[in-house]
Amino acid sequence: MSTNYIDDSLGLHTDFYQINMAQTYWEDNIHQKNAVFEVFFRKLPFHSGYAVFAGLEKIIQYIENFSFSESDIEYLRKELGIKEEFLNFLRDLTFTGNIRCMKEGELVFANEPILRVEAPLAQAQLIETALLNIINYQTLVATKASRIKQIIGDESALEFGSRRAQEMDAAIWGARAAFVAGFESTSNVRAGKLFGIPVSGTHSHAMIQTYKDEYTAFHKYASTHKDCVFLVDTYDTLRSGIPNAIRVAKELGDKINFIGVRLDSGDLAYLSKIAREMLDKAGFTHAKVIASNDLDEYTIINLKQQGARIDVWGIGTKLITAYDQPALGAVYKMVSIEDEKGNMIDTIKISSNPEKVSTPGLKRVYRIINKMNGHSEGDYIAMEDESPQDEEKLRLFHPVHTFLSKFVTDYEAVDLHEDIYRSGKRIYQLPAIEEIREFASRNLELLWPEYLRTLNPEEYPVDLSQKCWDTKMRNIDEVKLNVERALLKI
Amino acid sequence: MSTNYIDDSLGLHTDFYQINMAQTYWEDNIHQKNAVFEVFFRKLPFHSGYAVFAGLEKIIQYIENFSFSESDIEYLRKELGIKEEFLNFLRDLTFTGNIRCMKEGELVFANEPILRVEAPLAQAQLIETALLNIINYQTLVATKASRIKQIIGDESALEFGSRRAQEMDAAIWGARAAFVAGFESTSNVRAGKLFGIPVSGTHSHAMIQTYKDEYTAFHKYASTHKDCVFLVDTYDTLRSGIPNAIRVAKELGDKINFIGVRLDSGDLAYLSKIAREMLDKAGFTHAKVIASNDLDEYTIINLKQQGARIDVWGIGTKLITAYDQPALGAVYKMVSIEDEKGNMIDTIKISSNPEKVSTPGLKRVYRIINKMNGHSEGDYIAMEDESPQDEEKLRLFHPVHTFLSKFVTDYEAVDLHEDIYRSGKRIYQLPAIEEIREFASRNLELLWPEYLRTLNPEEYPVDLSQKCWDTKMRNIDEVKLNVERALLKI
Repeated sequence: MSTNYIDDSLGLHTDFYQINMAQTYWEDNIHQKNAVFEVFFRKLPFHSGYAVFAGLEKIIQYIENFSFSESDIEYLRKELGIKEEFLNFLRDLTFTGNIRCMKEGELVFANEPILRVEAPLAQAQLIETALLNIINYQTLVATKASRIKQIIGDESALEFGSRRAQEMDAAIWGARAAFVAGFESTSNVRAGKLFGIPVSGTHSHAMIQTYKDEYTAFHKYASTHKDCVFLVDTYDTLRSGIPNAIRVAKELGDKINFIGVRLDSGDLAYLSKIAREMLDKAGFTHAKVIASNDLDEYTIINLKQQGARIDVWGIGTKLITAYDQPALGAVYKMVSIEDEKGNMIDTIKISSNPEKVSTPGLKRVYRIINKMNGHSEGDYIAMEDESPQDEEKLRLFHPVHTFLSKFVTDYEAVDLHEDIYRSGKRIYQLPAIEEIREFASRNLELLWPEYLRTLNPEEYPVDLSQKCWDTKMRNIDEVKLNVERALLKI
Repeated sequence: MSTNYIDDSLGLHTDFYQINMAQTYWEDNIHQKNAVFEVFFRKLPFHSGYAVFAGLEKIIQYIENFSFSESDIEYLRKELGIKEEFLNFLRDLTFTGNIRCMKEGELVFANEPILRVEAPLAQAQLIETALLNIINYQTLVATKASRIKQIIGDESALEFGSRRAQEMDAAIWGARAAFVAGFESTSNVRAGKLFGIPVSGTHSHAMIQTYKDEYTAFHKYASTHKDCVFLVDTYDTLRSGIPNAIRVAKELGDKINFIGVRLDSGDLAYLSKIAREMLDKAGFTHAKVIASNDLDEYTIINLKQQGARIDVWGIGTKLITAYDQPALGAVYKMVSIEDEKGNMIDTIKISSNPEKVSTPGLKRVYRIINKMNGHSEGDYIAMEDESPQDEEKLRLFHPVHTFLSKFVTDYEAVDLHEDIYRSGKRIYQLPAIEEIREFASRNLELLWPEYLRTLNPEEYPVDLSQKCWDTKMRNIDEVKLNVERALLKI
């Protein structure tokens, strides 16, 4: 690194203002006040009808190791001039609060709390940046992957994006998010090692160049590996690549497992159809056509519509960078704080943009499953002390167009949050990655297809309880009144 | 992590096919053949007239630590079934080759080699993915930052994007790339610590919510920090935020350094003008207006055109994710390989897309500086053994429209590559980050403004030497001939 400080902690992986605020709270001796923050986004990405939450594994790693190293402290002292007493406070800091969070693979919608932190004010503030950094990216990629997987259906989707990922963490955590959302494997071996994801890949153009001709290259590869996919577009796909692949597959017969050929350029619709014919004619009816080259849900729909004969889809750039919307706007908003008397009071953030007004108070999110058909009627955000699971009928109403409402009966109200940390102690065990993937897949079955489709999905209802709504309105009125009162004093 | 393997190495931060190919080379006993690869991109991002190279610091970190840990080896053995003999080869592997590369902050254009690896074949193959992963992201963000900085001019640009970055590495390396390209500071404290970049930030909406009213919050902050920027849009910017900021600034007088107010929502053009008036009227003519909210070069042009009175620009999402084009398509192509007799021979990759045909052979890139005016006439790609710096006049011709050509005389031909590694030993010392930033800034002065403008820039000439061109044509003919010959055998 360019400085003398070593990268031995994520304590400083935060915005400087968090440290400045923590210092004010500490000097004002309110840093231990209990504060509650919620993470949510205001708009679904990609015009999607749903999002898939991912990020909890990394959040757990981060929280478990949340502390300031000696080199962090030294940096803050020497370079930023932070006072010694406050540094002593930071030096001893660990996370001692509560975290409730959705399980990875859960379907999540706009304006509902994904994660809730209840912790001493300074701690809750300091972890904001990292939590958002993690959730925003991993949820974005899981969502993009899920959309692509919807179009691909039962065919295989392979994640290939490392070289185009936005630096190394994105490559591995993006690979994991894609697997959670239904991808079959990743090309990134480190992601395979760390997360237990299957890895895949055979050879690149460089191997053909090394041996100069395709025949020799394919033959050498086949002599050293049982499973063979031959990349056929180095020189001329139809006249050289596929004929050479077939020649080697015939020559080596049962000695290899000829999985298929990979097309990485050109007109994939046309080439895949001819490739299929050539393979079939040569007797390799089980050999697959694997295609890659800047694919996403839209190009895949298009290829399918053209009758492309592609069995396996390699997806890189467009997935790993969430190309058509590379940022999810999840935010972290304070919803409650302890007052001088030790009572928790609601807090709100007002904005001239109505959709940016936050919803105050400790809340829970329930998925309202209709017992008659097993489908979800919508999500229901209620105050902490409400029990929608005990009601006989529930009124759901649109949080913007409040006159839109419906009643549901004979439902199950599933609390979407799990307790992850209580008083700094982790009480949640992360499931195996295959289980998370299975959970994500099952969740999709809860939704009517209208919410799942790639283009112009129906808006899934995320409704507030009457109490939640009333609390929000009361808080807005109070803030307005306070602003008017304060104006008189200026 | 979800598996038993620890994250103690970047050896496996590679695509699986690299390992598969390395194994073929090793079994075929050609893994030590000398091979040359070049990194380049085919198209400038953002319709920009230039790009700014960044990534070398991380590349050096990566190469210096390039090896396979025991846990890597164990994973490959147990989970991927890689043979013991090949694992022994990997276990002992370090990088022993040569790397030539542009300096960070260098201006780079389409189709010119940014970096060149000359190394034993297996090594050169295994490092491909990580090099591209690093260069693609960091160069993209440095370029985006440079474009934004062009529009901002001498005003300050602050990098604020961590929470929306694509995971943690992107947050810190993106902050560094932005600084290289002329940004003044980052909000990410870890980036500040690791790279020696100034950090900035004051407080968020949560602090206002903590104290309920803005007056108290600003006052508390001002009592605990000398430098104060007050965020004024929590409730009502003009009626509450700015009046409260002014009130606190007046009350505390010289006790604080009232830097200014920050606008983070609403109509920034309108609000900044009124904010300016209010501050001036209150006597705070030096107080600055700081603005943020999804800004990029286009919104900033627009705000300036509307006469916005913004002094400091906080740039987040659109920069750190390179929102309008979140991936740079840099590739890694083999240009030469040792033959059986130990001679280096050219290699080429053909494609049905003419722009994807690679340029074979060991090459150098020169920037041709006109001594008369100090401006660059274009870049000139020549074969390794050419010496354009010794020619009296140079013919530059367009590599696609070859009839477009010009002669230059009285020029300096500056070799854009530095030797970074020779036989695995690093012989390049990375400059201090301020020096890199200075270098990037000076480079812009070499270019005519027509190449620098944000919209519809002129195409900067990147030309091939006659020898380079002839070599490419000869290789294309050879490949075509070989394909025809091979066809006869199938």
